[in-house]
Amino acid sequence: MLSKAKLNHLKELLIENDLDGCVMGPSHDVEYLAGIKPFADERFRGFFLLSDGRWFFICPELYYEDVRQALGQEAHIYIWSDTTGVMGAFERAEHDYKLQGKTIAVNDGIRAIDLIDMQRVINGEYVNGSDIFEELRLTKDEEEARYMAKAGEIADKTFEEIVKFIKPGISERQITNRIKELLIELGGEELSFNPIVASGLNSSKPHYNDDKRIIEEQDLVVLDFGCRYKGYCSDTSRTVFIGEPTEEQKKVYEICLRATTEAKKAVREGIAAEEVDKVARDIITQEGYGEYFICRTGHGIGLAVHEAPFIKAGNKQILRSGMCFSIEPGIYIPGKFGMRVEDIIMVDGDGSRSFNNSNREMIII
Amino acid sequence: MLSKAKLNHLKELLIENDLDGCVMGPSHDVEYLAGIKPFADERFRGFFLLSDGRWFFICPELYYEDVRQALGQEAHIYIWSDTTGVMGAFERAEHDYKLQGKTIAVNDGIRAIDLIDMQRVINGEYVNGSDIFEELRLTKDEEEARYMAKAGEIADKTFEEIVKFIKPGISERQITNRIKELLIELGGEELSFNPIVASGLNSSKPHYNDDKRIIEEQDLVVLDFGCRYKGYCSDTSRTVFIGEPTEEQKKVYEICLRATTEAKKAVREGIAAEEVDKVARDIITQEGYGEYFICRTGHGIGLAVHEAPFIKAGNKQILRSGMCFSIEPGIYIPGKFGMRVEDIIMVDGDGSRSFNNSNREMIII
Repeated sequence: MLSKAKLNHLKELLIENDLDGCVMGPSHDVEYLAGIKPFADERFRGFFLLSDGRWFFICPELYYEDVRQALGQEAHIYIWSDTTGVMGAFERAEHDYKLQGKTIAVNDGIRAIDLIDMQRVINGEYVNGSDIFEELRLTKDEEEARYMAKAGEIADKTFEEIVKFIKPGISERQITNRIKELLIELGGEELSFNPIVASGLNSSKPHYNDDKRIIEEQDLVVLDFGCRYKGYCSDTSRTVFIGEPTEEQKKVYEICLRATTEAKKAVREGIAAEEVDKVARDIITQEGYGEYFICRTGHGIGLAVHEAPFIKAGNKQILRSGMCFSIEPGIYIPGKFGMRVEDIIMVDGDGSRSFNNSNREMIII
Repeated sequence: MLSKAKLNHLKELLIENDLDGCVMGPSHDVEYLAGIKPFADERFRGFFLLSDGRWFFICPELYYEDVRQALGQEAHIYIWSDTTGVMGAFERAEHDYKLQGKTIAVNDGIRAIDLIDMQRVINGEYVNGSDIFEELRLTKDEEEARYMAKAGEIADKTFEEIVKFIKPGISERQITNRIKELLIELGGEELSFNPIVASGLNSSKPHYNDDKRIIEEQDLVVLDFGCRYKGYCSDTSRTVFIGEPTEEQKKVYEICLRATTEAKKAVREGIAAEEVDKVARDIITQEGYGEYFICRTGHGIGLAVHEAPFIKAGNKQILRSGMCFSIEPGIYIPGKFGMRVEDIIMVDGDGSRSFNNSNREMIII
């Protein structure tokens, strides 16, 4: 169901930013506003909102019934069919709303190839609307926080179970598949992303997504996974060891865990995102591993697994209560190993709430 | 590993189409060329190929190791970090390759918001490159056909098993989750899309993606699912009945099955895609249900679950051996019910091969 309050919030953001309108493709923005899940296929769908409050939707015939149900009878919907193609719908919308020359913010659900086609008919000035769409979903209310806490709990329980499953001789793939099963069995609606199981040398790739390697004695394994609950995501990482770690591995683990712990402690309302990143980065840099901390400290999370605020150097965004994000500083040494410990937290007044609470001590299997 | 032969094929397509170059975001095109899976996040990645054969890659630091491994030591890679942002990489690439004013084809993996940002620095004439990227992956070789056949077999076995699981009192969600488990247990690498389980009134929505309803006596249930094997997709639909169907349901089922069967029989090298659509559409229209056949007859499939060729009215594309696509004419009566029977086939000389062979007779549970 379309939320009038949320739509009004977006309209206010358009006005504040001197925009004439915006267009959203299948995305978490549309899910947030109207409960339409971002099932993306190659058929163009666009939700247009103008700064005067008028709005319309361009919809393939195939999705019409769903969209009508979500938006209500008063919605203005331009339907197009597989036979006629989308260009006619652009023409009808342009005829009715006269968007030529208008400044229109685009969200992350519109493909470049569709923008190129759309511009031929609706010849507006299209701008990157990331800022306003980030702001739209930036702080979570109590209901959203409950869903995220639940998604985090399911991930934590999955970690407890998967630790019992990991042993030498099984493949990364088997662990990945078992994590997928557990996340659903334990109450997740769906995966929030394809789990990462990176063992041995593969662990130095933060977003490793192959899964063929067999677990060996003396490996370490980075696990990174999450699920959705009522649409809201969890995302947690832990690093476990098969047999006694080397002295260097012990040292690096201690540094990673300390960086996560201290960065979490620094989070409060009023601090800038970059300052939280700095806490983690300073710890890792002082220990001599700065060059191996090749990513940001964290990313916002909500309906999308990656969204604002981004906890990184240079981001002066001031944290506010209700913002949710990961804290996941890591050390990735190519040709050797990589590690991280990742929790999701929510800013809450002078501190934060942690949505992940599974064991963070060094686990040796 | 980057395939020189495939890259050369793409280069030839650029030349044939008077294009100066192309840019590909995370997509099945890049998976096809270089084995880099389309793990999409908000960080820009772009594979640029110029018509003179030169090529380069813009890559976030986080993915550098993977990309370097896939592309080899000779690859020209512009790295950007979360701290510096992507604009500097665009500037360095523009400085070296001077793309301003060039005609550059864009693939479906580039987001509109990234194109808007990129245009500020690499001020080329960007065009929708769908045609050339469709052509690139359009016909499957024997190895690809084997993978697709295997993915189809896994889906067929999943159907056999899920039929035993469906009964009144369980939810659409439970069926969806069991299908997901089966597809993996039976050998699928991952889902090719989130399964559709649409029961009762929900069945009239071809891409229904809610799953809360409980199965009742006298329901019909549309099941639509598939998995990947070595990256290649399966996608099959069947409609099953809980208890004796009504006379109208029996009639509509017979029409849908006949439309699928006859359209499959029509497939051969040299026929146009629209003619195959017409075979199915004529059958459904002659029976008086034309207005309820609200989608195309089928879509191509391969590394992407939806790709060319599209089997629809107006598509004069001539079918060639090795093209793979679905045949899934359906009848969707809002407020009543919907049905389809879907198989994947490959054009093979004067006929076709079917990658789905599970029971198509009316199944009453």
